[in-house]
Amino acid sequence: MADEAPFQFLHNELIQYISKSTENPETEHGRNITKLENMGFRVGQGLIERMTKDTARFKDELDVMKFICKDFWTCVFKKQIDNLRTNHQGIYVLQDNKFRLLSQLSAGKQYLELAPKYLAFTCGLVRGGLSNLGVKSIVTAEVSIMPACKFQVMIQKM
Amino acid sequence: MADEAPFQFLHNELIQYISKSTENPETEHGRNITKLENMGFRVGQGLIERMTKDTARFKDELDVMKFICKDFWTCVFKKQIDNLRTNHQGIYVLQDNKFRLLSQLSAGKQYLELAPKYLAFTCGLVRGGLSNLGVKSIVTAEVSIMPACKFQVMIQKM
Repeated sequence: MADEAPFQFLHNELIQYISKSTENPETEHGRNITKLENMGFRVGQGLIERMTKDTARFKDELDVMKFICKDFWTCVFKKQIDNLRTNHQGIYVLQDNKFRLLSQLSAGKQYLELAPKYLAFTCGLVRGGLSNLGVKSIVTAEVSIMPACKFQVMIQKM
Repeated sequence: MADEAPFQFLHNELIQYISKSTENPETEHGRNITKLENMGFRVGQGLIERMTKDTARFKDELDVMKFICKDFWTCVFKKQIDNLRTNHQGIYVLQDNKFRLLSQLSAGKQYLELAPKYLAFTCGLVRGGLSNLGVKSIVTAEVSIMPACKFQVMIQKM
């Protein structure tokens, strides 16, 4: 029994609930994505606060990103990010080859359009986590072949 | 870092979201509780299905209840139910002395009235799990001293 299952099932229910409680799913799609993103943001803030309360101060931005890829990802998804790349100018790409919140969807192309709903919460999660560590960012996600997934983090210099 | 934290934070967000999206919180309190209960029901169904796909058939009702108290509870809350009692006539009382979804609330009496919101999802969770094992039930919860909590399961004979 996978440890992340309760979280996964609850996340699915949340998506269903938000979609259903919308009167015009077509026009309000964007708003629902924002709602999910905001919820992820607050969960990310809470989690990172609890996770880092006894850790040493981070050396730099890259050190923060490594923490997100390893400890933070493992806490939520029970696995690490498979690949972290950066252009050393504030853009980071986090690749998860088997992203847990997509692994329940069929890998066929016909479901690719549903992917944004399943990624919005996690984009917020990363943004919220980073935000509480003092790193302001914009996080977007893209899927080419399910369940692999890339999260792009653009650091906003302050 | 507690393993159940992502689930706990997400559960809190869900409660906040449902409360906020309600226009008249006073009058619709009951409806919101029902929504949470229903979501728990579906999560419980999904979880138990996945957990029991390779287990042996259960001997009897008590055997099912023990599975709920041990394996099912551990999967979701990372601890077992502390005490299981029954009158052997279809009523079971599951006591959790440190219920994780309440442990973030202050133990003072002033928050006792908030407890139903934090218990509804789990009542549904138990009912959904039992339902998928062929046991129809009514599940209610009560709190006397936070974060201890009792779930009462009344089996509905079919």
